Amino acid sequence: MVTTSRAVVCLFVWLSVCQVRGAYISEKMNETIRNLLQYYNISNVQRFDGKPVFSRELIGGVEENMVLMGGVLDTYEKLFHHMLKNLPTPSPQLAPSGTASNAEKGADSDVKTALEYLLKMVGDLKKSHYQKQGTLLKRLHDISRIKMEERVVQSKALGELTWFFEEAHSLQHKRKRRHARRVKTNRRA
Amino acid sequence: MVTTSRAVVCLFVWLSVCQVRGAYISEKMNETIRNLLQYYNISNVQRFDGKPVFSRELIGGVEENMVLMGGVLDTYEKLFHHMLKNLPTPSPQLAPSGTASNAEKGADSDVKTALEYLLKMVGDLKKSHYQKQGTLLKRLHDISRIKMEERVVQSKALGELTWFFEEAHSLQHKRKRRHARRVKTNRRA
Repeated sequence: MVTTSRAVVCLFVWLSVCQVRGAYISEKMNETIRNLLQYYNISNVQRFDGKPVFSRELIGGVEENMVLMGGVLDTYEKLFHHMLKNLPTPSPQLAPSGTASNAEKGADSDVKTALEYLLKMVGDLKKSHYQKQGTLLKRLHDISRIKMEERVVQSKALGELTWFFEEAHSLQHKRKRRHARRVKTNRRA
Repeated sequence: MVTTSRAVVCLFVWLSVCQVRGAYISEKMNETIRNLLQYYNISNVQRFDGKPVFSRELIGGVEENMVLMGGVLDTYEKLFHHMLKNLPTPSPQLAPSGTASNAEKGADSDVKTALEYLLKMVGDLKKSHYQKQGTLLKRLHDISRIKMEERVVQSKALGELTWFFEEAHSLQHKRKRRHARRVKTNRRA
């Protein structure tokens, strides 16, 4: 009983949050997600097990958080591609959510169309505001995939180490100097 | 003949750069790299083929470049671990580089000791100045490895999308506002 009540409260809070945080979320996007959640349904116990897919804990300054967010958006794109690829053919219909508003709008779109819509929303957001982060993530991906077993790579990397060691020190000194300058300017202002 | 002359000039320039850019590089580190390059030797044609292991092209602001640099340092650590793991037993000796100075210092350390020394230098740099970037890279790694095939993950991620979509917009507005404020403060100062 207690567990059920807790789940209901959690669900209520969660739905309220979805509604309140709506400055950048259109009603269509909200409704698409709600409808998809009926198709990809899981129990409340599973949903509210305290283990979110993506941690909401932010880290450092705006720039670092934007890199993190770029990673989340990238993963959402991959996830939607994966979900689209694994849909049965023909794509299943989304059940109408039962409200008059939905019925009026004719909630007869299929899961494929709904996922494609969310994929486009995420892609548009990336293109308009997260391009720099996208390039950075691509570079990080390439860096992590060097062929460590090749002698040429090992030798070249050894030869390149001094430059990167120097640059790594230099960058953090630049950041420190810039920070000190900002504090000074702010005090003057 | 032309190719050889070009390679010699390149080598000279490269060695000069190694010497000049030395504000944060100790003589011991420089010498360790030089000695290791004799063991992990490749031809000049291979070294100067215009395809470095890590691109030196910087990207965006200091914060983003520090994230990139964090990735490079991480990969150097993995590379040195890989090179250490693949050494023959017992560890081969480094040939003395022939200069009086080296002979005096007794350049008799082995490849294992040299690699461990570089690994420690990179690790110390990470610990002292790149901890935040390390946490960020770990988070990015975790984000990219969610279990996309699991229904619970798919459904939870759908439920979390509005928060991240909202936050992604909000972050870039924050960055824009902060940038505008800085321009204003700088003009006043």
